[in-house]
Amino acid sequence: MSFRDDGAAALEWVAAYLDGVRGRPVLARVEPGAIRAALPEHAPDDAEPFAAVLRDLDEILMPGLTHWQSPRYFAYFATTGSEPGVLAELLAAGLNQVGILWRTSPALQELEEVTLAWLADLLGLPEGLHGHLEDTASTGLVTALAAARTAAPGRRVVVCSEHTHSSTAKAARLLELELRTVPGDETFALRPELADLTGACAVVATIGTTSSTAIDPVPALADRCAEEGVWLHVDAAYAGAAAVCPELRPLFAGWERADSVGVNPHKWLFTPMDCSAFFTRRPDDLRRAFSLVPEYLRVDEDVVSLSEYAVPLGRRFRALKLWAVLRCYGREGLQRVIREHLRLAGLFEEWVRAEPGWEVCAPRPFSLVCFRYEGTDEENEALLERVNATGEVFLSHTRLDGRFVLRLAIGNARTTEDDVRVAWDVLRREAERGLW
Amino acid sequence: MSFRDDGAAALEWVAAYLDGVRGRPVLARVEPGAIRAALPEHAPDDAEPFAAVLRDLDEILMPGLTHWQSPRYFAYFATTGSEPGVLAELLAAGLNQVGILWRTSPALQELEEVTLAWLADLLGLPEGLHGHLEDTASTGLVTALAAARTAAPGRRVVVCSEHTHSSTAKAARLLELELRTVPGDETFALRPELADLTGACAVVATIGTTSSTAIDPVPALADRCAEEGVWLHVDAAYAGAAAVCPELRPLFAGWERADSVGVNPHKWLFTPMDCSAFFTRRPDDLRRAFSLVPEYLRVDEDVVSLSEYAVPLGRRFRALKLWAVLRCYGREGLQRVIREHLRLAGLFEEWVRAEPGWEVCAPRPFSLVCFRYEGTDEENEALLERVNATGEVFLSHTRLDGRFVLRLAIGNARTTEDDVRVAWDVLRREAERGLW
Repeated sequence: MSFRDDGAAALEWVAAYLDGVRGRPVLARVEPGAIRAALPEHAPDDAEPFAAVLRDLDEILMPGLTHWQSPRYFAYFATTGSEPGVLAELLAAGLNQVGILWRTSPALQELEEVTLAWLADLLGLPEGLHGHLEDTASTGLVTALAAARTAAPGRRVVVCSEHTHSSTAKAARLLELELRTVPGDETFALRPELADLTGACAVVATIGTTSSTAIDPVPALADRCAEEGVWLHVDAAYAGAAAVCPELRPLFAGWERADSVGVNPHKWLFTPMDCSAFFTRRPDDLRRAFSLVPEYLRVDEDVVSLSEYAVPLGRRFRALKLWAVLRCYGREGLQRVIREHLRLAGLFEEWVRAEPGWEVCAPRPFSLVCFRYEGTDEENEALLERVNATGEVFLSHTRLDGRFVLRLAIGNARTTEDDVRVAWDVLRREAERGLW
Repeated sequence: MSFRDDGAAALEWVAAYLDGVRGRPVLARVEPGAIRAALPEHAPDDAEPFAAVLRDLDEILMPGLTHWQSPRYFAYFATTGSEPGVLAELLAAGLNQVGILWRTSPALQELEEVTLAWLADLLGLPEGLHGHLEDTASTGLVTALAAARTAAPGRRVVVCSEHTHSSTAKAARLLELELRTVPGDETFALRPELADLTGACAVVATIGTTSSTAIDPVPALADRCAEEGVWLHVDAAYAGAAAVCPELRPLFAGWERADSVGVNPHKWLFTPMDCSAFFTRRPDDLRRAFSLVPEYLRVDEDVVSLSEYAVPLGRRFRALKLWAVLRCYGREGLQRVIREHLRLAGLFEEWVRAEPGWEVCAPRPFSLVCFRYEGTDEENEALLERVNATGEVFLSHTRLDGRFVLRLAIGNARTTEDDVRVAWDVLRREAERGLW
């Protein structure tokens, strides 16, 4: 078979998958080890046709997929690998650029710089920030904290809320920094009056925590950090996308004063996994932490390579998909989808509030609703498992004020009001059926 | 336009690009900033068609691409984004799986485990190793050294050769470990009798250094590490692929005793960027360094997520392309291409040796030839610049024994003897023309 024929088959496979994904059970239903057991123990000796890959994708792997592309996926943070993003990944793979130095792909580096400037502008971030892409926000946390540690020798404490994503703790452990967590208030936001910045090299504030999308008091923390010379990183991995809507910008007050900001286009900006944007107004501190140019990479060029700002040396052409998404949606298109997601989340929140026996458990600034049914934690956990076992929708959970809480996150571009209605119907049906 | 129509256009674009890439100037010819200047300052307000992305790829970005897919690309380590690998990236983007926990994509996790076991088997590594994929070997070094540091509290030294890739120094800096470099011998291999392991938590040995593909004495280092309880990491990022050929296995003697091994399928195993394999027989030490499970990810599953072994929490469906490549080449296909690359490198080496005025500068165990022309470093540097400026081929350089040395690396699956002949013709032509 030729590349063109195999490619047409692969493309049709993806198109049909996207057409039909709403009908598939959202959460994978296999037992651990089942996919492994169904695969051969060894690679084949002789070449197989690409059609065999497509066949086994259907016959072996499909039952082991959890369908993140389903409009009825409401777990963690719902995402979208949008059509322009998917096709741009095909282009990026075909070009197979490897960004090591600028000269190994000037277009890769400069498109990344321009696309990140576009994104900063769309989000209302200040002009002139350095921006680059990382794989995930976890890596971005390592980047930020490594720069902060380098910039403040001898200070080894990272301050964050008890609700901060575990990636901060993971990065702190890697960098051997002490994590000092500050209690949250009744909205699950960090209480700045309890934040002790003694010995701190960094504060991590979150706009849109993973648990409940709480918003830490960034302006107060920015004041404190400025006074004490502490690096302020704002983690807006999920919620940052919402800043494309000017009416939501007040929720982001103060992030323009951060030393660094993380926003994940692969979460709520319709870009396929992985694509995490890292902005900083202190790129020289990143370079001090990461730059290292061996002889075999030394060339007579007055251009700083993006590899001097982060851990990996080689980078793939990740910007291409973000560029394609920003162009094919346009500012208006991004705003329209995000506003619709907020509307749907608001609707769901109203339904929960209006229904006896159900309770909303946290403020809802963005597109995540935290809620629970009457009864014990165990009963709510059993309800969640039962809802997910139907295959009709997939939700996840968290724990707030010590209680088991269900999370419904809207973030898939194909999700409609009907899909959200299905989630609510399934939840009530399974709850009414009784669980014990 | 529909996804199918846009997809057909994108696919045809890639197919035509691959058909014609041999004819393009290999090294990008733009000035720094030229691509940036040609792009709009802001994202569009209104949606644009995907066709506009393809148009600007041709009209704006193309001059800024260095053609890694060109069979006349001989710089750094030459690579291939092979056809099955490219199409598997389309599938992975379309599925948009996000591996956080096992349940968020059982197929992603188990295919990664199986494919890594296939790869270990193809390379003759021991059975039962833990294997997972990272973006790059730089990240793999962070993983290895973080585990080594955790496993040997109080020991803060990393020992490696002076010729070790800069990613080891970068990882050591991030982890605040002291780097102790050991001089190389006349083959640029680490001299084990000069290695002082006092206070060492890790030794990094390389099979196929980036400069010259030198081979560190892994058996001797494995003995020393075993005696002193030091973690041995073998970096075979480029050369590891060659172990698919049994007749080359003697070059890998001792790597089966390493605590961890890195091999990059995105280098010489026909897999698009990025895809770096990490193997270890001490997965529990990785977990001790990296595992952290917050409440919102806690589920009642007896499966360890791959995120517990590395920095990122979310992982993309990177295994799919490696699986597709291993199947569509098969063991025999991989061996055939790698043997051909060794044959071509051997030919080029013979031509250099036979030609007055030219000199081979390092042993050639794999597909990289290090060589130079008579005259000064400046003259050789000027020769390299002139050769690359022709656009006909692209080579890079290093410095060995203090001298400027040219590097010709063969690693593109489409490279033929004729392509290598072109490189040699261009080199001699430009050298004869005189440079001063």
